[in-house]
Amino acid sequence: MAALYAVVMAGGRGERFWPLSADNLPKPFIKLLGSNSLIQDTVTRIQPIVPLERVLISIGAAHLDIARQQLPEIPEENFLVEPVGRDTSACIGFCALHVEQRDPEGMMLALPADHFVGDSAGYQKTLQEGLENLEGATGVVFGIPPTRPETGYGYILAEKPAVHTGAWPVVRFIEKPDAPTAARFVTSGSYFWNSGMFLWKNRTLLKLFEMHMPEVYHGLSGIRPLLAKKNADSVISDIFSSLPRISIDFGIMEKTSGLRLVPAQFVWDDIGNWASLERALPPDARRNIAQGSHLALDSTGCVIYAQSDTVAAFGVSDLIIVQAYGKVLVCSKDRAADLKKLVAALGPQAG
Amino acid sequence: MAALYAVVMAGGRGERFWPLSADNLPKPFIKLLGSNSLIQDTVTRIQPIVPLERVLISIGAAHLDIARQQLPEIPEENFLVEPVGRDTSACIGFCALHVEQRDPEGMMLALPADHFVGDSAGYQKTLQEGLENLEGATGVVFGIPPTRPETGYGYILAEKPAVHTGAWPVVRFIEKPDAPTAARFVTSGSYFWNSGMFLWKNRTLLKLFEMHMPEVYHGLSGIRPLLAKKNADSVISDIFSSLPRISIDFGIMEKTSGLRLVPAQFVWDDIGNWASLERALPPDARRNIAQGSHLALDSTGCVIYAQSDTVAAFGVSDLIIVQAYGKVLVCSKDRAADLKKLVAALGPQAG
Repeated sequence: MAALYAVVMAGGRGERFWPLSADNLPKPFIKLLGSNSLIQDTVTRIQPIVPLERVLISIGAAHLDIARQQLPEIPEENFLVEPVGRDTSACIGFCALHVEQRDPEGMMLALPADHFVGDSAGYQKTLQEGLENLEGATGVVFGIPPTRPETGYGYILAEKPAVHTGAWPVVRFIEKPDAPTAARFVTSGSYFWNSGMFLWKNRTLLKLFEMHMPEVYHGLSGIRPLLAKKNADSVISDIFSSLPRISIDFGIMEKTSGLRLVPAQFVWDDIGNWASLERALPPDARRNIAQGSHLALDSTGCVIYAQSDTVAAFGVSDLIIVQAYGKVLVCSKDRAADLKKLVAALGPQAG
Repeated sequence: MAALYAVVMAGGRGERFWPLSADNLPKPFIKLLGSNSLIQDTVTRIQPIVPLERVLISIGAAHLDIARQQLPEIPEENFLVEPVGRDTSACIGFCALHVEQRDPEGMMLALPADHFVGDSAGYQKTLQEGLENLEGATGVVFGIPPTRPETGYGYILAEKPAVHTGAWPVVRFIEKPDAPTAARFVTSGSYFWNSGMFLWKNRTLLKLFEMHMPEVYHGLSGIRPLLAKKNADSVISDIFSSLPRISIDFGIMEKTSGLRLVPAQFVWDDIGNWASLERALPPDARRNIAQGSHLALDSTGCVIYAQSDTVAAFGVSDLIIVQAYGKVLVCSKDRAADLKKLVAALGPQAG
């Protein structure tokens, strides 16, 4: 049987988790949910499906050190350094070359490094169903049954199979909808959140690049013979830098027929900002979520994160309160998604 | 002319300024309003009226070091250490013995160490009017023309003089009123806030103790001959500890006839809690008050105090946000006066 490789994508800046995240510590590496970072949780979670020697970490050069430090069990050669950030199509294409090099018949499971999964057993079962349904499909996408009319996610429409097979034929991808559309999606039963988790035969994936993103495929073809060469980094970097900044969803998946969707059998959240911690951590009796030394007195619906200080909330509601790295953030929960505006206004003070 | 002594009373814990104040750093010693502490401001403010050698600092033993450190210009012998805290009657009686020792004909001006005065020139002018009106009175009280129906202060009813003399005969002291009563007081023109600032001839003051607080006077009479003796501290402490915990207002002033009131010609606040900083510091365009490194974005009516970290407020209103000594407080402004409840709930975490 062909070997399964997992590509854990650890890009992104994570300004929406200021002051905990920052340029030198993006979201996958912060310990938002407990004693482990999100990328550590991701790697642990796939262990029963993918052995460590086939877990590849796609990482920017600036974050290679922190990645090695947090994932000492991953073999050195499995850290695949992206020369520059060029969104997920270039990232996944580059990783496909590495998988091809190791096993031309291999499979690739692409996973964001910074999502929350509430149930590891359900997660592993879902991945297993994906593997069982890959044969005969151009690829498998993992869809999350929506639980609220979220307008911040992309959706996937799929066709319920007449006989239960675990996989639904994908009809189409839908960009972030408006609120009434999202509400209709939630109740329809045929729409799923796009988790950004995908599974392909690596050979098929490269063919999809050739078909739908020929300019990227051309670049990848230029990089392929350089991978085994010494001192080729700067040439690889030049080619990589020329690739367009396009997501794999937009560049390939939306254009691909013959995809199958496997519905997730686990609670999932992309933890897009501080307010989404409410969906990943257990609340107290007054709906406060807290990590670190704290007291919430006569306070309701707050998200508290205390890195080293003691945080005391008194008589307040629906606030995000974060203390970390010599900064204190106090933010209305309904402004959590706009945090980039604050970080921009802080300028050098944010760092 | 008899010499004027100022007694600056630096007692009190200041839990309502947690986490900036604490047992080892009570309110008079914290730098709430800028680069100087409240007691430093108080001493500076009376300089034109009372020379340093006649400024006496009434202080608990636990805070003698910080007082010396903050007031290096005050002569060593002017720090009068209270053996234990026994409210303002015992404090002022004890200080009266020290003034008597230096000048039996002296005058005593008693001043809380932790109040805000908005206009030093008006303050000095008011004190001068007090001095000019002391002759023929049992004492002078300084009254603040009320600017709001404050229910947290005591009031003094005084009789407007037919001819302007600067001093109004005191009719009576009134305990903290309810809101409708306070509203009536504000509009009447004859009621003043009790500032806790008093002026007496020291000899008269001791007679008032003899008349209205004979048990305290008896204790003071026991302490008087011990002041000049060596190794008498423990006996003084025993006597002092036996004195009742009663305020000078309740023990003496409310019972005293022949008092005069001089209306304050300055903005005043007792800065009772974090929310009252709004009355002492200039606001920004959105009514935020801030000290230290901070950014208030889309935020209104907040009080921000950043001791060492950078505090960022985003999309919030009417909050108190304080960072100091490894603690962060986020408190609704309308709960500021209840902060003792939070400190009690924190227990050892508060320290």
